[in-house]
Amino acid sequence: MTQQAREFARRPSLGVAVIGTGAMGADHVRRIDQVISGAHVAAVADLDEARARRLADTVDGCTAYGDAAEALAAPGVDAVLLASPGPAHEEQLLAALARDLPVLCEKPLTPDAESALRVLDAERKLGRRRIQVGFMRRFDSEFRKLKRLLEGGTLGRPLLMHCRHRNVKVHDYFTTSMLISDSVVHEMDCARWLLEQEIAAITVVRPRPSSLAPDGLEDPQVVLFETTEGAVVTVEMFATCGFGYQVQAEAVCERGTARIGEGHDLLVNSPAGWGGEIPQDFIARFADAYDLEVQEWVDAARADRTTGPTAWDGYAAAAVCAAGIEAQRTGQRTAVELVERPDFYA
Amino acid sequence: MTQQAREFARRPSLGVAVIGTGAMGADHVRRIDQVISGAHVAAVADLDEARARRLADTVDGCTAYGDAAEALAAPGVDAVLLASPGPAHEEQLLAALARDLPVLCEKPLTPDAESALRVLDAERKLGRRRIQVGFMRRFDSEFRKLKRLLEGGTLGRPLLMHCRHRNVKVHDYFTTSMLISDSVVHEMDCARWLLEQEIAAITVVRPRPSSLAPDGLEDPQVVLFETTEGAVVTVEMFATCGFGYQVQAEAVCERGTARIGEGHDLLVNSPAGWGGEIPQDFIARFADAYDLEVQEWVDAARADRTTGPTAWDGYAAAAVCAAGIEAQRTGQRTAVELVERPDFYA
Amino acid sequence: MTQQAREFARRPSLGVAVIGTGAMGADHVRRIDQVISGAHVAAVADLDEARARRLADTVDGCTAYGDAAEALAAPGVDAVLLASPGPAHEEQLLAALARDLPVLCEKPLTPDAESALRVLDAERKLGRRRIQVGFMRRFDSEFRKLKRLLEGGTLGRPLLMHCRHRNVKVHDYFTTSMLISDSVVHEMDCARWLLEQEIAAITVVRPRPSSLAPDGLEDPQVVLFETTEGAVVTVEMFATCGFGYQVQAEAVCERGTARIGEGHDLLVNSPAGWGGEIPQDFIARFADAYDLEVQEWVDAARADRTTGPTAWDGYAAAAVCAAGIEAQRTGQRTAVELVERPDFYA
Amino acid sequence: MTQQAREFARRPSLGVAVIGTGAMGADHVRRIDQVISGAHVAAVADLDEARARRLADTVDGCTAYGDAAEALAAPGVDAVLLASPGPAHEEQLLAALARDLPVLCEKPLTPDAESALRVLDAERKLGRRRIQVGFMRRFDSEFRKLKRLLEGGTLGRPLLMHCRHRNVKVHDYFTTSMLISDSVVHEMDCARWLLEQEIAAITVVRPRPSSLAPDGLEDPQVVLFETTEGAVVTVEMFATCGFGYQVQAEAVCERGTARIGEGHDLLVNSPAGWGGEIPQDFIARFADAYDLEVQEWVDAARADRTTGPTAWDGYAAAAVCAAGIEAQRTGQRTAVELVERPDFYA
Repeated sequence: MTQQAREFARRPSLGVAVIGTGAMGADHVRRIDQVISGAHVAAVADLDEARARRLADTVDGCTAYGDAAEALAAPGVDAVLLASPGPAHEEQLLAALARDLPVLCEKPLTPDAESALRVLDAERKLGRRRIQVGFMRRFDSEFRKLKRLLEGGTLGRPLLMHCRHRNVKVHDYFTTSMLISDSVVHEMDCARWLLEQEIAAITVVRPRPSSLAPDGLEDPQVVLFETTEGAVVTVEMFATCGFGYQVQAEAVCERGTARIGEGHDLLVNSPAGWGGEIPQDFIARFADAYDLEVQEWVDAARADRTTGPTAWDGYAAAAVCAAGIEAQRTGQRTAVELVERPDFYA
Repeated sequence: MTQQAREFARRPSLGVAVIGTGAMGADHVRRIDQVISGAHVAAVADLDEARARRLADTVDGCTAYGDAAEALAAPGVDAVLLASPGPAHEEQLLAALARDLPVLCEKPLTPDAESALRVLDAERKLGRRRIQVGFMRRFDSEFRKLKRLLEGGTLGRPLLMHCRHRNVKVHDYFTTSMLISDSVVHEMDCARWLLEQEIAAITVVRPRPSSLAPDGLEDPQVVLFETTEGAVVTVEMFATCGFGYQVQAEAVCERGTARIGEGHDLLVNSPAGWGGEIPQDFIARFADAYDLEVQEWVDAARADRTTGPTAWDGYAAAAVCAAGIEAQRTGQRTAVELVERPDFYA
Repeated sequence: MTQQAREFARRPSLGVAVIGTGAMGADHVRRIDQVISGAHVAAVADLDEARARRLADTVDGCTAYGDAAEALAAPGVDAVLLASPGPAHEEQLLAALARDLPVLCEKPLTPDAESALRVLDAERKLGRRRIQVGFMRRFDSEFRKLKRLLEGGTLGRPLLMHCRHRNVKVHDYFTTSMLISDSVVHEMDCARWLLEQEIAAITVVRPRPSSLAPDGLEDPQVVLFETTEGAVVTVEMFATCGFGYQVQAEAVCERGTARIGEGHDLLVNSPAGWGGEIPQDFIARFADAYDLEVQEWVDAARADRTTGPTAWDGYAAAAVCAAGIEAQRTGQRTAVELVERPDFYA
Repeated sequence: MTQQAREFARRPSLGVAVIGTGAMGADHVRRIDQVISGAHVAAVADLDEARARRLADTVDGCTAYGDAAEALAAPGVDAVLLASPGPAHEEQLLAALARDLPVLCEKPLTPDAESALRVLDAERKLGRRRIQVGFMRRFDSEFRKLKRLLEGGTLGRPLLMHCRHRNVKVHDYFTTSMLISDSVVHEMDCARWLLEQEIAAITVVRPRPSSLAPDGLEDPQVVLFETTEGAVVTVEMFATCGFGYQVQAEAVCERGTARIGEGHDLLVNSPAGWGGEIPQDFIARFADAYDLEVQEWVDAARADRTTGPTAWDGYAAAAVCAAGIEAQRTGQRTAVELVERPDFYA
C-alpha cells in the first residue's frame, strides 16, 4: 500500500444523511449500513417524519428529521444522498452546496432544464464539483467493459448504437411521457457517456401499442437519437414486455461491433470472428465470491454464529485428496475411507 | 427491519486478526479494510514480522505480531482469518478454538486427514461450530444458482456431473500431485456440496501430457469420483491450458441438465428446451451497480473528491427528455437545445 | 408413399433454361446440374453468346443461345430461371408467360413498380401463377422457424422488428441508393412476409459515414418501415462492416421476442426465460449429414471411386464395441485388440 | 468448369439397389429419389417381398426383389445401399464385392470383428476400395469444421475429448449392451476419425441408473477411451435423458479447445478468447436456402404448380424501394403507394 492509501484507510467513516425514505431511500440506508465500507447513516429525513423515524430506528446512531435542511445541518453529517422526489431536488441540492457537502442525487437532477441550470450555476460558483447524479449504469461491469473497449479504439469510431430497454410491467401511475423521462433517460445518459457526444436531435416512432399494455399507455416505442458528431442511436423502449427486465446495447463501430446485456459477457464481432474474453485467473473469476465469503462470515460472527463449509468438509477434502494422489500414483480406482460422520456435523 | 435486524445493526464492528501476510493474507486485509461492512483488521501476524508490520502500517488501528498466538490474544480481536501455510493450521485452529473465536480458515483445513480429525474433535468438545473452511466457490453466484436448482428438485436426482478446471499456467513449484490436492480439491468440495453425498472412490486417468506443460508435470488429467449414492463425476483438470481460467460444471439429472461457468448465466436443458432465466427487475440486474455507485461515491467523498456523472449530465438528460416528450407528442424529429457547456464541466 | 407421391416420382426430369450466365446464372447451372433432384439444364442464354457456350459445354445435353427468346422456345425447355440483369426481366417474363412456362426470377422482378405492374397484369390474364421471385431468405431454415413461430401465435401480435444486414465490403460500382434497392430490399420482403402486412411508410436516417466506406458511399444507414397494421421495423444497413456477413432479425411481439441469425438457433425471450428448442431425434439433427453422405457416395461411384469411412473403420468399430461390452460387464479397463492394419487401408 | 467436371456431368445417372426396406431403407429410397442428384433407385430388395414391392411401386422404374442377390444382379444396378439388418451384411457385402459394385453399408459393417475381417480380406483381394460404411457424422457440417480445425493444427495436438450423446428415450428392445454397440459406436468412430488414432483401451463406469430408465436398462453410463497415442476420450452416454437429442464434442488441445453440437457454430477457446467464425458472404450463409429455393421451384413445376414469393411480392418490393430511395434523398418519412392488391394475389 502507498502512503496515500494508508492515509485514506485512516480516514473516519463518512456520515451520510439520506433524504427521502421511500423504497429507494430505504434501500440506500440498508446498503450504506450493511454493504458499504467506510460509511454510516447518520441521519434520515422525510416529510413523513414517522416513516423516517421507523427507518432511523433500525440503524445505530441514526437520527430522523421531518425536514431535509435540518438533516443536512445535523451533527456528524458529512455527505448527502438524495432519494426524495425530483421536484424537491433543486432546493435540497442548493442547500447541500451551501454547506459544501458531497451529494449523490438520484435521477433526475431536477425535473427540467431551467432548474438544472440553476443548480449548475450554484455548483460552478462554489468552484468545485460536489454533485454526482445517480446514473447507475455507468457502474455496471458490462457497461464499463463496453466503455473501456470503445475508449481503447480497436473498433474505431462508433457509428451507431442499438439499445433495448424492456420492463416486465409498469405501475398504474406510469404514463406515455414517462417512457421518455423515466426510462429512455437512461439510454440518453448511456449514449452520451459511451459516445462522448451530446444528443442533437430526437425522434419518436410509435407502433400500434401492445394490447397487453394498460389502456392509454402507448407502449412500445422506438426512439432515435442523433448526436453532435453524427452517430445514430436506436432505442426500443418496451415497458410492458411481460417476460423480463432487459437492458441491451450494441455499439456498431467502423471496425466491429460490441454487445452487452444478453446474459453473457461482452460479445464482440470483429474481423477475428465473434466472441469474448476469457478471464485469466481465479481472482477475476471469483472476486465476488471471496467478498461474499468474508462478508457472510463477518455477519455470522457478529451474530455469534458460524456458517459455511465446516471442519468436516475440510476433513473430507483431505481424505479424498489422499485417495486421489494414491489413485494418480497407481492408476487404479481407489476407495475413499472416511470415519463415521459425527452427529455434530450432520 | 425486524427487531433482530435492528439489534444486529447496532453490534460493534468485528475485530479480525489476519494470520499470514502473503498474497492471500494481504488481499484479505485489503478486503476487510475497504470492501467488507461491519469488520476491521485489528491485528496481523506472520513469522516474517517485518512483512506483517508493513501491512499493519497501512491500516488504521492495526497491530503486527510475529506470533499467531499473540495476535489471537491481542485486545480487540473478535475473530481470526487464517491465510498461513497449511502445515501451520492445526496449531492455529486449536488456539482459536481454545479462545472460542470464530475462524475463517483458507483451504486446506489441515494437510492430512489425521490432523483434520484432531481439529474436528476439538471443535466438537467445544460444543459449537466455530470453523468455516475457505471453499469460496460455495459463495459464487453461479454455483449458488446451480445449488438452488438442484435443491428445488425440478430436474430430479443428479446422476452425473461434468467439471472442467483450467488454468492458464502454473508456478514453478507446482507438482503433479498438486493437481489433485491444490486444484481438484475444489471439485471435490463442489461435488460433495452440490450432490450432498460423500465421495466413495476416485480414479485418475492420465493422457499423454501436453508438450507445453513444464517438464515433469503430467498435465492434463481426467479424474473420476464415484459418490456414496452412485453418482459419477468427471473432472478435466488442465493446469496449463494457456488460454484462460475456466471453471465449468454440468449436473446431469434425471429430468434435465444444468451448466455454469461458460460466460453466460446458468443454462438448463429440459423438456422445455435449452435456456435460462431472465431477471425480472432492475434491482436484480443492477444490484452490483448500485453497490459500486455508492461505494465509489463514499470513497471519493472520504478523499474530499467528487467523481461520477456530473450535474451537467443531469442537465443534459433533462434537456433531451424535454425534446423527447415533444418528439413523442408531435411525431416529428426534434432538435435538442443545450446551453454552451461551461468549462467547469469540460 | 401416397398415390400422389408415386405419380410425382414418375414425372420426367424438368428441362430448365437458365437466362444469364454471369456468376449467379453459372451458379444456378451448377446447382441444377449437381445438387437438384428432378431437373436438368436444357438451355442457357446470354447476350454474350460465347460465355453461354462455354457454360453449356460443361453440361450434358445443354444448348447455348445468344437470345433468351430462342432459349425459351428450345426443345426440352419446361421452365425458365432468370439470372439476367433486372432491366431485361420484363421482356423475358412476358415471353415466359406467353409460353405458359414456370419462371424463377432472381430479384428484382423488374427495376420499377410500373414495369412490375405490367408483369402482374400479364400473369393475371394468363389466369394462373407462373412466376416465383427469388427472395431466397424465405427458404432459409432460420427464417422459416421464425415464420412458423409467428404464425403459431404463442408470442402474440408482432409489434416491432429489428433487422441487421451487414456485408464485409461492396463492389466498386455499389452506390448509396443500392443500399436500399439491392440490400434493404431483402428486409422489405422479410418484413412483408413475416408480418403479413404491406409497408406503408419508410424513413432513412443517415449517420456520419464510416471512414472506411468508399468515397461517396454513405454507409451505414438506419432504415425504418411502418406497416399497414402499425408495426415498426428498424434496419441497420451496413455494407462495409469489414468483419463478416450477418443477417439478423428479432421480432418483438406482445408476449415475447424471437431472434435469428446470431450463430445459434432461433432464440426466444418469453415468460419462461430465454432459450431455444432442442432437436428431438437424430433425423432432425443429422438430416443434412445423411443427404451429404449419400450424395458424396453417388458422386464418387459415378467417378468410379469409393471414399468415406472404410471397411477398416467398420472392423475397428466392431472390435472396440466388443471390448466395450466386456468393459461394461466386468467394470474393468479392457484393452482393445486389433489385427495389424493392412497397407491397403493405410 | 474443368474438363474433368464436364466429363463427370455427362455420366449417366447411377442405378442404386437398396437392400432392406424398413424405416432406414425406405428413407434412403426417398432420399435417392427426391433429394440426390445423379442417381435413381433401380431396385429394392427385402425378405418381406411384399413390403419391397409396396416401396418399389412408389418409384418410377424400380423393381422389387425378395432376395438381395437377385437385386444386385438386376439390370441397371450400378451400386448397392445396404439398409438390411447387421447379420445379413457379410453375405451381401461379399456378393457386392464379387460384382465389383460400390456399396454404402449402414453401420455396423458386420456384427463382430471376425466377420468384418473376412469382408476386409475380400475387398483387399478385389484390389480396390468398394465399401463405404455409414458413419454419417463424418458428413455433418459441424463435425467437418472441427475436423478441419484439428487438421489445421493451430490448436496443437489433441489431448482429450469430451463427448455427450443423449437420446430422449429408447425402444422397448434396447438393452444395456446396445448403449455401447448401437450408440457409443458413433463416438468410437468420431474419436478415431478426429484424432486419427486407434482406440487402445476402454473403461465403462456405471452410475446408479436413472429412475426414469426402463427396468433393466443401466442408463446413463460414462465411457472412457484411451488411444494409441495417449489421448483420453470421455463419453456421457444417456439414452433416456427425456429432453432431446444432443451430440456434443469438445476437443481439448495443447493450445485451445473447440466445441460443437451446442446449438451454435463451432466454438473455440484460445488465447484470443472464446468465440467462433463469422461467415464472409451471403453464399456461405444462404447456400442451403438457394438449394431449397430451386428444389421447391422444380418440385412445384413438375407438379404443374407455382409457389413461393409472387410477382406481387416483386412489385411491392419495387414500390417500397422507390419510396426508400426518395426517403434517403429527402431525409423525410415517405409514404409507400401501392395499387390495390388484385384478388388473384390474395
